[in-house]
Amino acid sequence: MKQSRTFIPTMRQTPADIDATSHQMLLNAGYIRTNASGIYTFLPLAQKVMHKIENVIREEMEKIEAVEIMLPILQQWGESFIGDANLFNVSDQQGRHYVLRSMDEDSVTALIQGDVDSYKQLPIILYQMQKQFRDIQRPKYGLVHSREMLTIDAYSFHADKKSLHEVCEHFIQAYSTIFTRLGLHYRLLNAQWKKGEGTDSPIEFIAMSSIGDDMIAYSDSSSYAARLEWAEAMPMEQQNEIRLKDMEKVETPAMHTVQEVAEYLHVQPTLIIKTLLYAIDGEMVAVLCRGDHEINEAKLKRQMNAQQVNVASLEEVQNLFSADPGSIGPVKLPVGVKVVADQAVGSVVNGVCGANETDYRWIHVNPERDFAVDSYMDLRNIQAGDPSPDGMGMIRFAKGIRLGQILESTAQSKASVTAGFQNTEGEFQQFLIGSHHLNVSKLLAALAEQFYDEDGMKWPRQLAPFDIHLITINGEDEIQHQLSEDLYHLLRSYRYDILYDDRQERPDVKFTDADLIGIPVRMTVGKKASEGIIEIKFRETGETVEWQKEEVTEKLQSFYNA
Amino acid sequence: MKQSRTFIPTMRQTPADIDATSHQMLLNAGYIRTNASGIYTFLPLAQKVMHKIENVIREEMEKIEAVEIMLPILQQWGESFIGDANLFNVSDQQGRHYVLRSMDEDSVTALIQGDVDSYKQLPIILYQMQKQFRDIQRPKYGLVHSREMLTIDAYSFHADKKSLHEVCEHFIQAYSTIFTRLGLHYRLLNAQWKKGEGTDSPIEFIAMSSIGDDMIAYSDSSSYAARLEWAEAMPMEQQNEIRLKDMEKVETPAMHTVQEVAEYLHVQPTLIIKTLLYAIDGEMVAVLCRGDHEINEAKLKRQMNAQQVNVASLEEVQNLFSADPGSIGPVKLPVGVKVVADQAVGSVVNGVCGANETDYRWIHVNPERDFAVDSYMDLRNIQAGDPSPDGMGMIRFAKGIRLGQILESTAQSKASVTAGFQNTEGEFQQFLIGSHHLNVSKLLAALAEQFYDEDGMKWPRQLAPFDIHLITINGEDEIQHQLSEDLYHLLRSYRYDILYDDRQERPDVKFTDADLIGIPVRMTVGKKASEGIIEIKFRETGETVEWQKEEVTEKLQSFYNA
Repeated sequence: MKQSRTFIPTMRQTPADIDATSHQMLLNAGYIRTNASGIYTFLPLAQKVMHKIENVIREEMEKIEAVEIMLPILQQWGESFIGDANLFNVSDQQGRHYVLRSMDEDSVTALIQGDVDSYKQLPIILYQMQKQFRDIQRPKYGLVHSREMLTIDAYSFHADKKSLHEVCEHFIQAYSTIFTRLGLHYRLLNAQWKKGEGTDSPIEFIAMSSIGDDMIAYSDSSSYAARLEWAEAMPMEQQNEIRLKDMEKVETPAMHTVQEVAEYLHVQPTLIIKTLLYAIDGEMVAVLCRGDHEINEAKLKRQMNAQQVNVASLEEVQNLFSADPGSIGPVKLPVGVKVVADQAVGSVVNGVCGANETDYRWIHVNPERDFAVDSYMDLRNIQAGDPSPDGMGMIRFAKGIRLGQILESTAQSKASVTAGFQNTEGEFQQFLIGSHHLNVSKLLAALAEQFYDEDGMKWPRQLAPFDIHLITINGEDEIQHQLSEDLYHLLRSYRYDILYDDRQERPDVKFTDADLIGIPVRMTVGKKASEGIIEIKFRETGETVEWQKEEVTEKLQSFYNA
Repeated sequence: MKQSRTFIPTMRQTPADIDATSHQMLLNAGYIRTNASGIYTFLPLAQKVMHKIENVIREEMEKIEAVEIMLPILQQWGESFIGDANLFNVSDQQGRHYVLRSMDEDSVTALIQGDVDSYKQLPIILYQMQKQFRDIQRPKYGLVHSREMLTIDAYSFHADKKSLHEVCEHFIQAYSTIFTRLGLHYRLLNAQWKKGEGTDSPIEFIAMSSIGDDMIAYSDSSSYAARLEWAEAMPMEQQNEIRLKDMEKVETPAMHTVQEVAEYLHVQPTLIIKTLLYAIDGEMVAVLCRGDHEINEAKLKRQMNAQQVNVASLEEVQNLFSADPGSIGPVKLPVGVKVVADQAVGSVVNGVCGANETDYRWIHVNPERDFAVDSYMDLRNIQAGDPSPDGMGMIRFAKGIRLGQILESTAQSKASVTAGFQNTEGEFQQFLIGSHHLNVSKLLAALAEQFYDEDGMKWPRQLAPFDIHLITINGEDEIQHQLSEDLYHLLRSYRYDILYDDRQERPDVKFTDADLIGIPVRMTVGKKASEGIIEIKFRETGETVEWQKEEVTEKLQSFYNA
């Protein structure tokens, strides 16, 4: 493609109010343009990258026997969508109401209902790759949180759990392969899946990034990654052979935080036992954790197998304890208050806890000797520096962009509750439904986030909009022009996709644009054309070399096959 | 693909109120489903055919250096769209207004404005393939007149007419190639183009069909085709050596139609000269044509180079002639009335015309001898049986589906009026814009219309959703099962795309479905499997043959390469 005939409007000026550098790069390098808040146009370069991504996705979908359909964007399903404020509403001239396609489990279920009516026709996996619309209030980070995006959404229908699990695993494998093929650095959040407990919680794929709203705990030495509520904190090692001291009550005047108490008593926060009173499904429970730890309420809820978990009100605390919430503790608890503790509490020796008397603490407290615990559980947030739950490496935290999720669900919506088939016994049975989503626009944003530097984009070779950026320094020079034309035609015959900068622009303009655009190989035909020499610059490493024109095809081949 | 894993919900029952057989076939054969009035879901088979069409289109677009972009579907361009009732309106939660993408010359012009600012950057051709929305009142013929459709829309921007013409010719060529590659029977309506006069009238591509709202005149012996307003009627041959009779006035009591007058006077309608009074740009003009012909007002307007053409009111006629409109004629016209005649009037000998006196006609009237004509022009509709304007064959009429159009236009919209570039003299100049549209959903409908019979679809090999439909008669039979599996894997390794009917259904169900689906080659593994014999049925011809398993790949290859 001659650069003069395509549309690559690079910019030198950074537009104001851009909240992500990768987004700014895509704008500056002429990949995208903003149309309205959270709504973008994909220019020719982005469109080429998108097609490469789409092709990889379609290939991997085919491998797992997912078949492609195309639902309408205008969806006449008003009933099921009530209450979702993020839908765009449309009416036609005849007063009928529609919403713009968002999630469409309902539509897909309605589509197969009646035609798929026997266990013999299951499992079946349908997907579509299409624009999705979300009227979110605060679009952010460009394509990361946009309002019109390209997504791929698959729904699988099953007769039994085994089939559902199997297909979900196929999707996990397919998504992993897609990301790997694209060269994306990602983490799979499947801590809950491995344990076989969390089928109602989505498996997620996260691209590690400097932007994004998701905070992820990951191992520095393995592929382990999880959200806080799923990242299992390992038990502490028992500290043996420390002499247990006698418990003593001390005054700690007007101390409210762990920090204050620790400093006042000259102890580490690890020795302090925090006590929080919760109302769990209506029952009062004292929940203990170490002073340097935080209770994760989602874990607490799951571990207690509870429906409702609420922090007790000031009134509830004072009614039970006649003490301020900061001064309560597990020693000599009021009758009827259950005690659960994070497992790290079990290894505290000669610790500190509230004395159930405002401004007083017990010191030299020891679990089991001085108070009973109904049960020890993993209740706390994992922390940076903790050992990774998979036994490999240490936990770190990073931001991430959530690209996709796989969810074993049933009855997400009105339509799917009543949808089903005849099972082997000839009885009606509800479908088990897996839903599998991937946000392709976000994926482009995440890739951009991982492949840029201060000069612009630097795409890996399988993703780049072109294979080669061919630049003529002086198009008026007959030798340079001829060598460029020869190379262009030669390399095209070898099926390379070439962006040929034939514009009448200064060399520095061409070079700056080339760096912005980020094609892996820049091929410059300049003064040395008369000696048959071409200058090569590899965008990724910045390395420059000179190639003789006769060796170009061979050396390119070894670069592209590496 | 195993048929048990995909979704092909064939139907035996014809849904009610379907107005096109091809549409019914697509429904029955499990290609599409109706979601709402004029809104459809594309099922896996249709999606596969669509991808084949899309690929052909993209390849041909690339050849003419059109580059692909993707505009948003949500378009915040309220101002320019005022007055178009067929747009779907959308508002978001913050009260901003959008329309769903329909035509987007404005958006594309706005996109390049500022970035394309010099003649050096022209021409540039941008296209997109995306859903388009039209809130039409009466959707018809399934995908032919739908409300949500896939279209490809290209806009080309030019510095001069020469470039505009050139690119429009490239598009004519590209569209023609696309249709030819897809095997579509189509006609190009470019009568106006050839003559170089009609740059403001679209060049159209029409698929001949039994449905569709467009009536087309075409030659039975050449590629000639045109809409009535552009189909040139050839001059009649002069009838020599007929004795001119003397003019006579006769009474024709209460006769209003050509038919009545002709029967009463025992003459052919070809001898009757009809006179119609028009107000053309405010001037009264008597327009003459033969009794068997019809004036085409679009031609009249164009030939007179007029802005306004209106049939005169009864009052206007009576004021000028003191006679009923049916009795007016060109002999002894009131002063100031201009006379134009269709060229066929010139060869009427001893004809009949109104006598400008209610219920009286002149007979034996001869042009030039009895009345003057200011000018003879092509003013009438061409008729079936007329010679084709290109000199080859006779004119016939057919219905057609309008698939695409190419238009040389400038300033279609507010945005494009003010958009422009710096020309070679450094002055601001308005873009010349070509717009080039192709309706891909309609194209699928037109192809379906041309490729079905009473049993179902019968796709040409380059379009079919699969290459081979492999059917096992009895999957329980070990020999049949094994041969089927062997064939499936063998042919896949040869890159054939196979639909493998592995369902536990009766043979007649499988065969009926196969005919409906319409894959070119049906391969049946039945009782003769033990002899290594496979039954082949070619969908297009209905021919059945037997192949030995060893010769399958070779014979298939010769079928697919034919």
